[in-house]
Amino acid sequence: MADLPFDLEALDRLAKVAVQTGLNLRKGQDLVVTAPVEALPLLRRIVAEAYKAGAGLVTPILSDGEMAKARYDYAADDSFDTAAGWLYEGMAKAYANGAARLAIVGEDPMLLSECDPAKVSRAGKANAKAYKPALEKISNFEINWSIVSYPTVAWAKRIFPDLSDREAQAKLAEAIFAASRVDRADPVSAWADHNATLAKKSAWLNEERFSALHFTGPGTDLVVGLADDHEWHGGASPAQNGIVCNPNIPTEEVFTTPHKDRINGTVRATKPLSHQGSLIENIEMVFKDGRAIEVRASKGEAVLKELVATDDGACSLGEVALVPFHSPISESGILFYNTLYDENAACHIALGQCYSKCFLDGARLKPDEIAAKGGNSSLIHVDWMIGGPQTDIDGIRADGSRVAIFRNGDWA
Amino acid sequence: MADLPFDLEALDRLAKVAVQTGLNLRKGQDLVVTAPVEALPLLRRIVAEAYKAGAGLVTPILSDGEMAKARYDYAADDSFDTAAGWLYEGMAKAYANGAARLAIVGEDPMLLSECDPAKVSRAGKANAKAYKPALEKISNFEINWSIVSYPTVAWAKRIFPDLSDREAQAKLAEAIFAASRVDRADPVSAWADHNATLAKKSAWLNEERFSALHFTGPGTDLVVGLADDHEWHGGASPAQNGIVCNPNIPTEEVFTTPHKDRINGTVRATKPLSHQGSLIENIEMVFKDGRAIEVRASKGEAVLKELVATDDGACSLGEVALVPFHSPISESGILFYNTLYDENAACHIALGQCYSKCFLDGARLKPDEIAAKGGNSSLIHVDWMIGGPQTDIDGIRADGSRVAIFRNGDWA
Repeated sequence: MADLPFDLEALDRLAKVAVQTGLNLRKGQDLVVTAPVEALPLLRRIVAEAYKAGAGLVTPILSDGEMAKARYDYAADDSFDTAAGWLYEGMAKAYANGAARLAIVGEDPMLLSECDPAKVSRAGKANAKAYKPALEKISNFEINWSIVSYPTVAWAKRIFPDLSDREAQAKLAEAIFAASRVDRADPVSAWADHNATLAKKSAWLNEERFSALHFTGPGTDLVVGLADDHEWHGGASPAQNGIVCNPNIPTEEVFTTPHKDRINGTVRATKPLSHQGSLIENIEMVFKDGRAIEVRASKGEAVLKELVATDDGACSLGEVALVPFHSPISESGILFYNTLYDENAACHIALGQCYSKCFLDGARLKPDEIAAKGGNSSLIHVDWMIGGPQTDIDGIRADGSRVAIFRNGDWA
Repeated sequence: MADLPFDLEALDRLAKVAVQTGLNLRKGQDLVVTAPVEALPLLRRIVAEAYKAGAGLVTPILSDGEMAKARYDYAADDSFDTAAGWLYEGMAKAYANGAARLAIVGEDPMLLSECDPAKVSRAGKANAKAYKPALEKISNFEINWSIVSYPTVAWAKRIFPDLSDREAQAKLAEAIFAASRVDRADPVSAWADHNATLAKKSAWLNEERFSALHFTGPGTDLVVGLADDHEWHGGASPAQNGIVCNPNIPTEEVFTTPHKDRINGTVRATKPLSHQGSLIENIEMVFKDGRAIEVRASKGEAVLKELVATDDGACSLGEVALVPFHSPISESGILFYNTLYDENAACHIALGQCYSKCFLDGARLKPDEIAAKGGNSSLIHVDWMIGGPQTDIDGIRADGSRVAIFRNGDWA
């Protein structure tokens, strides 16, 4: 293993936060971890931490960008409608048997940007379909799960193209460690404090029970109806298996479910979206009665249009989330080209599948009950950023009265 | 990726041999590849070669010695009776759906030598049980499969402890490339020639239809009865899916199935056996009516005894194989601590499961029919080396007459 240009004790702390705060892994619980091969230094620490925490069996599943790309470079056309269903079914079975799930992310966000977008989309669709049984256990929050990130060189160089490999990796590491609150001695208690703050914001929004949110800003005038019996969440949250976990490390958002038939107006992205290795820039959409009827982007429009056409629910929204402009990731000023970070730097919405946990008593609702309350259903769930320093948000009550939620990008 | 101290064009050729000769991968066929992370330079080349050959989907499954070891260092006692059954069941499903299977080996052969042998044995047993449905498709030769090797530093340093990391890796690479016949311009046709030679030896043994083989040598006086309707194989062979493949790269052996109830005498190993990360040295066994009734080793005896006690069939034999002393791997003079190599440097026998393909019309036989003909059944299949420069082998015909097969370690 080459010498790494960042603080290895912070990496140790990130492994601890992943297992203790992110997953809150229980004694005897199995764990499935996915990671790019470059993240091995973090993955190895997490596996050790998990066993120290009493894990049953930890199964790491490693991926490699170069091998993923080889498929687009060399495979026959037939290849792109297939997926490793046997692997995803297995993962779903592991979760059904009680395993927790951790994803380490850090892949090159533009890995597939020079590949044929039609092939990328076909493979993505085949993958999403095969992955659905496993993903549902995550999106329904049946198990404790989390995502953490590792500063790979490939990712760092996309953010800091003018720096050397080592300098770029060091700078990304610093940003990740700060955002993940492992730049301090006791990150686990720092996370407890942060979770308390997010819980307070969610509690206020849940008391208010707004019927809709009205977003305004440059290029944006959008009313997002909220689903009936929606529930706001943020920070730590109990999974259906009873384990309170932090699904995202870092996280700055509070979020809930839009009403799939009550979204109207125009919205402009405030940051590029990195999706399946392609960068989609300057997204603009017009929504009418919950459906995107116009979809534009200055770059990657073909990928975006393929995405929105994935299935019936891919052109509606499954999530709306509030993140103040003055929050740690936003203030870093870095565009990470990674949703885990960029979505926590700005208010955002997600095309596609809603989270059942964002309904009152959501775990007991059947899919048709969720749909009846306005919850959207799709193979995809893709977040994109719509908040910035000029974003204002009003909460609209059922009686039409309004309350200022955000002014100039921050909580009012 | 660090600069590698060996010929990368030979590595390219090894990838080609793995896909074309080892697997004979078909257009549209899926492929599951397992590999240690250190073998990434070869794995990436193999994935590209497989797609160039028209592979459907290639799914790499990477392992890591350090993570494997973390379990023994840190996990709670309960952990050691569990295995990732969901992953193995998935692999079995992939094979049932037509995927081919390639294993890249090269792990540190002594990785687990300092771990508690009881835990290693429990985990190995749980793993073997969970892996059985997938392994059966391999041992029954239902699909085309192969094993190739990569010169990892950890493995190389066990063989050449006095050399530097780079020198050791370079030397192991050279030995692997020579044994795998990729040290020449056209390895695929070199393999065709070699396969023809092995086919000739197998054909002679199949005509002779010996009832038993009598091994003699220092510490060895062993009669190995051969199963009824046994069939000798060597080199390329057709899998049940009709694809002719080379399951081992390299291979020097011709092999068949012993009769599980007709093995008698004393046998002494001529090389150490590396098993699940432990080294077992100077094995001696006494067989009576097919069962090992005495089991000794000067080092690793506890691991060996656990192994032989795995199940009812673990103390009998599932394979007997002939390799001349004057053959390339043997002549390298290197002890590889890796069965793929060491078994191809010497005559060997295997404790445990037999191969159904080593019976006439074996693919159609049911397990009870195989057992009735003398085929052994077990969760394990562990080869160990019993041939050396003084090994003589007689073939004993049904009428008791004898034919010299080996004299002084080579074909008579």
